[in-house]
Amino acid sequence: MANEKSKVKRVPKRGRYDKETIHGILDNNRICHVAFIHQGVPFSIPTIYARDENKIYLHGASVSRMLVELDKGIDMCLSVASVEALVLARSAFHHSMNYHSVVVFGKGKAIDDAAEKIHALKVITEKLVPGRWEDARQPNPIEMKATKVIAIEIEDASAKIRNEGVGDEKEDYDLDVWAGLVPINNDLQAPISDDKLKEGIEIPDYIKKLVEK
Amino acid sequence: MANEKSKVKRVPKRGRYDKETIHGILDNNRICHVAFIHQGVPFSIPTIYARDENKIYLHGASVSRMLVELDKGIDMCLSVASVEALVLARSAFHHSMNYHSVVVFGKGKAIDDAAEKIHALKVITEKLVPGRWEDARQPNPIEMKATKVIAIEIEDASAKIRNEGVGDEKEDYDLDVWAGLVPINNDLQAPISDDKLKEGIEIPDYIKKLVEK
Repeated sequence: MANEKSKVKRVPKRGRYDKETIHGILDNNRICHVAFIHQGVPFSIPTIYARDENKIYLHGASVSRMLVELDKGIDMCLSVASVEALVLARSAFHHSMNYHSVVVFGKGKAIDDAAEKIHALKVITEKLVPGRWEDARQPNPIEMKATKVIAIEIEDASAKIRNEGVGDEKEDYDLDVWAGLVPINNDLQAPISDDKLKEGIEIPDYIKKLVEK
Repeated sequence: MANEKSKVKRVPKRGRYDKETIHGILDNNRICHVAFIHQGVPFSIPTIYARDENKIYLHGASVSRMLVELDKGIDMCLSVASVEALVLARSAFHHSMNYHSVVVFGKGKAIDDAAEKIHALKVITEKLVPGRWEDARQPNPIEMKATKVIAIEIEDASAKIRNEGVGDEKEDYDLDVWAGLVPINNDLQAPISDDKLKEGIEIPDYIKKLVEK
């Protein structure tokens, strides 16, 4: 999926260009950071997203500056990254992190078709919590109007992964310095019911399952 | 710290502009996403960073395209975001996340002065693991030459925070839908010593302390 723009140049062995890897990382993160140019200045805006086939959906208020700009079909780029561990080498120079990241290039277009828009919102909701869409109260016409959904066809993308132990210079292995990984937990925790929950409503199985994973 | 560029327009009550809040969020994340323009196209690149007073340091290989471009003093923007919980409302529309995010605007400049550069690398290392810099083997002249550090003076910044429970439409509270938060863990876990660790080296207290926090 890569061309000159997305090619990983630093530590090329960490670059991946196959759809399976790229889609996997996109599906495994919740927030992307969108880069776009507005009045000649680059912006970086964190936002929720979801992938559907070779498209990425962003959504927000209809009047959102970012979404209005993206709808013009301007060049845009987005990136996601998760950190799985701090990598503490014997030398400061070889300190690193284990991470999975993706950079995507494409152009956005607002979804006007009502059925397509509902589909996109369903994909965004189901990505966060599979099973939620059918359970929750679905959008009414006023909410649909207040929401803009941008679809971005992935034109070009690359992944970059570091997933290994410490790598030190040969002569440093003899130093009296502790080296190793400090893993980072990214797990979901036990759900907390809303204070105003109607009596008799249990935590649904699809939410319990989410946390047990 | 905000002007027209960084002002939070959607849900303005979530915007914060005081240094304490902005610096706190910057200090509490490990990866930022850097937006910059190269050959007319916006790029979004995830990278490690650290804050020092009103500056942000980025570092990497001296030949890194991003760092070489930023050193030209071009406009840039970076954002960070952490997600603390999924917010599951009764309506799909009011689904959200609890998050802390910051958007920073500024311009970069490579640090040439050797003492300043060492200071910046120390700040980056100490941010990840306080106490690590003095323990690890510090950079030698070859490593210093291979490393570029960019300092970005924060010209303009804003934070956006959602840190509350579910908010539903009045008429939805009576629906038979579970609502609540699913918190996300971001904790560091027990360190894993390198396979090639020299015999007799214990996990240092400053690393144990990191995990106990």
